[in-house]
Amino acid sequence: MKTAICLLSGGLDSATVLYYARSKGYRCLCLSFDYGQRHKREIKAAKAIASKAKCAWRLIKIDLPWKGSSLLDRAQKIPSGRSGRFTAAEGIPNTYVPARNIIFLSFAVSYAEAAGAEAVFIGANAVDYSGYPDCRPEFFRAFKNVIKKGTKKGSGIEISAPLIDKSKKEIVKLAHRLKAPVELTWSCYKGAKRPCGVCDSCALRAAGFKDAGIKDGALRG
Amino acid sequence: MKTAICLLSGGLDSATVLYYARSKGYRCLCLSFDYGQRHKREIKAAKAIASKAKCAWRLIKIDLPWKGSSLLDRAQKIPSGRSGRFTAAEGIPNTYVPARNIIFLSFAVSYAEAAGAEAVFIGANAVDYSGYPDCRPEFFRAFKNVIKKGTKKGSGIEISAPLIDKSKKEIVKLAHRLKAPVELTWSCYKGAKRPCGVCDSCALRAAGFKDAGIKDGALRG
Repeated sequence: MKTAICLLSGGLDSATVLYYARSKGYRCLCLSFDYGQRHKREIKAAKAIASKAKCAWRLIKIDLPWKGSSLLDRAQKIPSGRSGRFTAAEGIPNTYVPARNIIFLSFAVSYAEAAGAEAVFIGANAVDYSGYPDCRPEFFRAFKNVIKKGTKKGSGIEISAPLIDKSKKEIVKLAHRLKAPVELTWSCYKGAKRPCGVCDSCALRAAGFKDAGIKDGALRG
Repeated sequence: MKTAICLLSGGLDSATVLYYARSKGYRCLCLSFDYGQRHKREIKAAKAIASKAKCAWRLIKIDLPWKGSSLLDRAQKIPSGRSGRFTAAEGIPNTYVPARNIIFLSFAVSYAEAAGAEAVFIGANAVDYSGYPDCRPEFFRAFKNVIKKGTKKGSGIEISAPLIDKSKKEIVKLAHRLKAPVELTWSCYKGAKRPCGVCDSCALRAAGFKDAGIKDGALRG
């Protein structure tokens, strides 16, 4: 049986990717991070999703001694109130965490080498997203080359970002088809008990469900 | 003034690189890792070196829940007793830690973005080394492309590995010329109070000092 490391934030996208990897016959080892994010609630979601999927789950705690992001620094305001899609002209929002996906992927690759896994799955997408540079196809292509050149396993570890060119609407539909437990997922950037409904992440999620014509079970609480 | 993040293991090579970066006019922010290595003694060395150099020093603690290396797993034997240089045919030794330099560089790049640094310095070298894939020039070239494609700063962060094509003899001479505090450095892979003198890392160091005709102050205790 093939083995995959699945990066699981606890959000809609990564939960969908976990169920996608399972549907492709992978034994999935889930990996989540406590990196000081405001929305620690997503870690609880990740654990519940991995449990529901009957997959191993590991949490890495990272104490970043620097901030540089509104997701880490409560003194910064989380952007909200946008409507519609994000455009390149809007720039990279302050929710960008410096080199976050590089850090996450580096741990996933280490885990993959240690566990003999053939693939790393990540829920990044480059259509309905927040404009982060570490969610772009060219970044993942570059990272594949790092694995090839810099690890013992070399090209034996694939990076798979199956949502990369999907819209949020398509992701919602895929999650529905795969029976991913969307009701357990958490997308909101804020740390409250219920989703705020207005931050960029909530807004993108809401638009995706609306466009797909599917009711978002998670918002019921 | 230009700012650089200097990866500082506490060994001879990284101490030399710190003093090299300083000599090039950089304000250096040192970054070390407690990743469960047997030779935690090197962390103490790193702190002392940064202090001697009057540079800021930060320690990141990483709990890797997997092993896959004799540096992390005391059940595995640290290789020793080699003489002379390492050859490709000998393969990658069990001291290789899965994706270690990818993890270290990812944190360094995050720090560089958050601190507005222009460069990351690393003491890797590809001549008298242990055959690790994440110490090769082609790995660093690939990683530069990851920074370019996957960070907000893009190509504004340089990766510099000034020792990459130097022999250990040349590194010892450079350290001497730069007045790097070699007496504070720690190279031994084992966790004892004094260097074992026989592990691969001790053997490479001893050969370097011998070839350079310089006495190794650190071995005096």
